[in-house]
Formats: sequence, structure tokens, C-alpha cells
Amino acid sequence: MDDRVRRHAEILVDYCTEIGPDDNILVRAPAPAEDLVVALYERIGKRGAHPTTQWVNPRAGRAYAREMDPADFRTKDHQLAAMTETDVVILVKATRNVAETGDVDPEKGQAASRAKQPIVEKRLDTRWVMTEHLTPATAQQAEMSTEAWTDYVYGAIDRDWEAQREFQQQLVDVLDEADTIRIVSGDTTDLRLSVAGMRAVNDAGETNLPGGEVFTAPIPDSVEGTVSFDMPVYRRGRPIHDVRLTFDAGEVVDYAASRNEEALASMLETDDGARRVGELGIGMNRGIDRFSDTILFDEKMGDTVHVALGNAIEECVPDDRLFNDSAIHADMLVDMSRNSFVEVDGEVVQRNGTFRFEDGFAAA
Amino acid sequence: MDDRVRRHAEILVDYCTEIGPDDNILVRAPAPAEDLVVALYERIGKRGAHPTTQWVNPRAGRAYAREMDPADFRTKDHQLAAMTETDVVILVKATRNVAETGDVDPEKGQAASRAKQPIVEKRLDTRWVMTEHLTPATAQQAEMSTEAWTDYVYGAIDRDWEAQREFQQQLVDVLDEADTIRIVSGDTTDLRLSVAGMRAVNDAGETNLPGGEVFTAPIPDSVEGTVSFDMPVYRRGRPIHDVRLTFDAGEVVDYAASRNEEALASMLETDDGARRVGELGIGMNRGIDRFSDTILFDEKMGDTVHVALGNAIEECVPDDRLFNDSAIHADMLVDMSRNSFVEVDGEVVQRNGTFRFEDGFAAA
Repeated sequence: MDDRVRRHAEILVDYCTEIGPDDNILVRAPAPAEDLVVALYERIGKRGAHPTTQWVNPRAGRAYAREMDPADFRTKDHQLAAMTETDVVILVKATRNVAETGDVDPEKGQAASRAKQPIVEKRLDTRWVMTEHLTPATAQQAEMSTEAWTDYVYGAIDRDWEAQREFQQQLVDVLDEADTIRIVSGDTTDLRLSVAGMRAVNDAGETNLPGGEVFTAPIPDSVEGTVSFDMPVYRRGRPIHDVRLTFDAGEVVDYAASRNEEALASMLETDDGARRVGELGIGMNRGIDRFSDTILFDEKMGDTVHVALGNAIEECVPDDRLFNDSAIHADMLVDMSRNSFVEVDGEVVQRNGTFRFEDGFAAA
Repeated sequence: MDDRVRRHAEILVDYCTEIGPDDNILVRAPAPAEDLVVALYERIGKRGAHPTTQWVNPRAGRAYAREMDPADFRTKDHQLAAMTETDVVILVKATRNVAETGDVDPEKGQAASRAKQPIVEKRLDTRWVMTEHLTPATAQQAEMSTEAWTDYVYGAIDRDWEAQREFQQQLVDVLDEADTIRIVSGDTTDLRLSVAGMRAVNDAGETNLPGGEVFTAPIPDSVEGTVSFDMPVYRRGRPIHDVRLTFDAGEVVDYAASRNEEALASMLETDDGARRVGELGIGMNRGIDRFSDTILFDEKMGDTVHVALGNAIEECVPDDRLFNDSAIHADMLVDMSRNSFVEVDGEVVQRNGTFRFEDGFAAA
């Protein structure tokens, strides 16, 4: 096994989730992640803790959904009961084929998402982390050789996360005082929203590995304007290209896509919250320096912002603020490297991908 | 996918466990069983039921156990909670390497077994079935090509189970009235035990697929004599060859093995029940006509009997009889095809592998 797989497991167990001997751990992973699961078990054994693994199996999920009647989906009691006794969840993505579930009726996907929602809510109360184990399929998606992709992935994962946290805290301090944020990119994106009273979260590898973003939640009704996304959005195995959304009073009032627009339409129909923004994230991981078409990496890039339709993140929303509730959480990405800026209460804090508190901002 | 994999799933879902729309199903399976898991999900979807899959991963289990302190094993609360909400369990075996866990300290294996016992007990209250998905490793174990092994496996699994049940009922009727059973094979096996008041169970593909055996439980103290087993016993990845046990008043008082005797010794030390017989099984599946060194098949062969050390099977033991309780259940096999007989209360019911109620018994 590549030593970097063991290092990945070490970061997940010791840093991201701080596992100790009392912890019950749920690993959710697909078969191509086997090496990482083996390394995780080794590390969890060192901590004297108690793991079980749920096999995520897109082929099986597809076969099941195609036979199910949408009315028959319901919350799986045994999964819910297990989550109630779980302290730590490690979600591992690893794909052999990003299109594996592309021929499932979107209506069934929505029914499955809604049925799963109570389990997701309980999971959010655990110490959870989401990560990615590399495969030839994600290398292909990134248009890279498997060897080059391997170097890239571990370069993004094995970083000095404490230094990253300090770097990001500078943006958290700005956003915690902020009211209005404006995001402009070229002629196609001009989005305004308010984060007044919301909390910005510094994710330097706790809930995502790689981490490297600061995220917050907009006041649901405050989102106005138009945003064009620069990377495809994957929805149940279907790539949706060139998504463009227009918001009025927080709600999507117009949408378009150059490919799989009907998958976008179906996504927006999941529930009321699916037409509103749950998260605004700003990527800050300088170890991620090119698009790979894998969202867990791309959304951490230092010159991107992402907007997620659907469910907000609890830590961002104080009790006295409206929480955008949805069975979906779909991240979409804007490239901010050229002809772009992020403005907070009228002041530019990022220009062409460079932050105000970084060298080179004046020149950017 | 081979159509026979779908047929295997159909038998498991529709016949062995009779899954309906209210059922929560737990599939426990290793990665090499992926095709069968996909077929199971398809079939479970047709029934409108609710599956989850636990990934059985011997490489991960080995890595974990090697790092764990034996004192740190405890029942996994999340697995126990899930089992409490589970109606049906489908246990799938499929191996890439039968020796995968052979370098784990047996003491840790015992600690893990004891910690798991409350979950096993809850599982026995569900509608459960154990089956085997074929792999090149089990073909190798059987000394057969993968193609020939495939034909063999599905020949044993896809049978007329109702006809098999009727055939087996003839032996159940004999055993339900029986007191003393004597098993003799060559010069090396002469075992006597009492089943007075115990129940014989007709397994024509309910708890095992392939099924094809009748099993009962001896009165724990009644087992006397010596038995030599003809196939290796696998214990946590180690083959124990030429096991020979001598019983006095139900307990193993002498034991030997030509290879891995220390694994046998450690197994016998698991707990008090591990030194006593929990099950006597008689194979009756005529679709299984040669040894393959995979116990789920071999123990169903029409001219074998098996004796399991350890935990008895609940259905066999009425409330007024002593139940042999143990964290282990280790099946061991005697070839009854030559120089052999099974005697019930002084009458021969099987001679050289042929039953009294079969054609050819007189000549056998």
C-alpha cells in the first residue's frame, strides 16, 4: 500500500475526527476505496475504537432504484438506529464510473433523498468528515494520468492544516462582521446576498479532507441577481453543463443549462428549499491549483467561490435566523481567477482570485 | 451478469427469506460478492423493501485486530442498534484469499467473537440466511477451474427445494423419535450421543443456501467416544488438518491435529461451550457430489455428517433441555461414503452414505 494512503487515514482519524477509545465509528465507502478502508481500520485499531463499514454501491443503488416504486421509499429504520449510536462518520467517495447512476429516473432519486433526510440530520450531529479516495475514473475526469492525479490528490490532502486554519481565519473575521456580499465574474455573474447575523465557518480539514474553505449561509430571502457556473454539476451520475440561475427575493426564478437541463429542473423541484441558496463557500486551498472536475477538490481552489442550492449547514445559522431546509445540497462553482471580484459591504476582499490579505492583491 | 446470479438472488429473496415491503434487510457481504449484491438489490427493489449493506472486509479486519489490545474489544453499539431494527439478514461469503486473516493472534479473534455475541444472538431472531458467492479463490480451494466451479455452485444452489424438503423429512421423522445416535466411520470414528427430547430441523434452503441438511443438538453431557474429521477446519484463515477429538461426558478430553494444532487448542479455550458439541448435522443434498473444501457446500453432501463444537442452534433445543452456549460454532466433517454407518437406537439408518429410505440401501 502507498504510504500516502496510511498518511491519509492518519489525518482522518487523528486530526479531522480525533477518534478515541469510546467512539463508535461508521465508515461509508464504496469498493474502490478498499485500501483507504484498510488503512482506516489499522489506525482506528491503534486508537482502540469501534468501526463498522457501510458499503456504498452505486451499481446496487441503481438496480434497486430502477425497480422501486417512488411511493415505497421510506427512512431505513436500521440505518437510522445505527446512526443514533454513532459518534464519528467517515464518508469516503471513490468512483469507478461517475455516470453509474445516470439512467435512474430523477423522481426516484428525489424520493430516496427525502427518505434519507432524517439519517443525514443525525449524521450532522456526529463528528463527520467527507473525503475522496482516488481512482482511475477520477483521474480520467481530471484529464490526468493516474500517477499525476495521485500526486495531486495527496498534495491537496497532506498539508499543514494548522497554518491553513490561520490563513483562513483572516477571511472568517471579515465575513463575521459582514452584511452584504457581492460576487462578480465577467459579464455573466453578478450575485448579491446578505449574511448579516450568520456565522462563517473555518474548514481547514474538519468536515472535508481536503479542506480549505470558509463557508457561511445567506439569509434565504436576500439572494438577488444572476450566476453562471463554470464547471459541470453532477446530479445522480448526470453532468449538467453551463448552469445559469437567476434569483429574485432568494428564489430561483429563471434557470438554464446547455446539457441535462431536465435534471436541473428536477433537482429544483425536490422541495421548497431546493430553489434557495443554503451555502456560500469560498475556496482557499493553494495546494489545489487546477480544476479536476471533482467537486470536493475544485470547491477548495483558492480562486473559486461556490454556491449550494438546498440545505444550509447548521453551524452557520444561529437559532434566531431562518434555516434553509432541503433534502438536497448541490454545490456549484464559479471561477474567480479572471475579471472577477468579491465585495463585502462595498469593499473588495478578493480580486482575480487573490485575497486582500495576500501578497499581490494590489496587482491582481 | 450471469443469469444464474439473478436466479441466486431470486431464491434468496423470494424463497429463503420471503422478503416483503415492510422488511428492513441487512446484507453482510465482502467486495468480491458485488455481482450478487447488485442482483439482491434489484430483487429487493421489486419487493419494495429496504436494504442496507455492511461491508465485510477481511483485510480491514486483520489490520484492525493486529492493532487492537484484546482488552479493548467490546460490542459495537451501532451494529447492535441496527440489528434490533432488522427483519432479514443475508450473509454472503465470498473470498479472494482464504488465508487473509491467518496472521492475527487467535486471542484477538476470540475477544472479537465474544464482543460480537450479543449481535449474533439478535441476528438469530431475524429471518437470516447464509450463502456463498463464487470466486476464483474458492475454485482454487476446490481444485477446479472457475468455469467448472461456477457450474458446480449453481447446480447446488438452484434446486427443487420443495422436493428436497420432502426427501429430508423422512430423516427428521426418524430423529424426532430418536434417543441414541452412533456414528461409525472406519477405525477412527466411533461417536455416541443422545438427542432425546431435542428437535431435528429440516433445512432445505432456509438458513443456508445451498441447503440440504437435517440438524439437531445433542444433550451436552451425552457425547462419548472419538471422532476423526476428514476435511480441514478453517479457523480465522488457518487450516487445521486431521482434527481428532475424544469426548468423555460431553467434553473434549483429548485432541490432536497434524497442522495448526495450536489454533485448535485456542479455539477450544474460547469458553466452556467451545469444548462441547452444539450441533449434529447430516448432509442430504445430492447436487453436491464432491468435496470442495468450502464448508457451506461440503456439510450438505449426501454422504457426510458434521459435528459443530460450540453454540447450539435455538430451534433444536426446547426450553426444558440444556442449551450449549458458546461464542464459537465450528463445523467439522466426517466422510461417511465408505466403511461407515449411522445407527439410531440400534438400527442402521445410513450405510456408506446411502439412507434407509433411498434405493440402493440394501446394496450399500
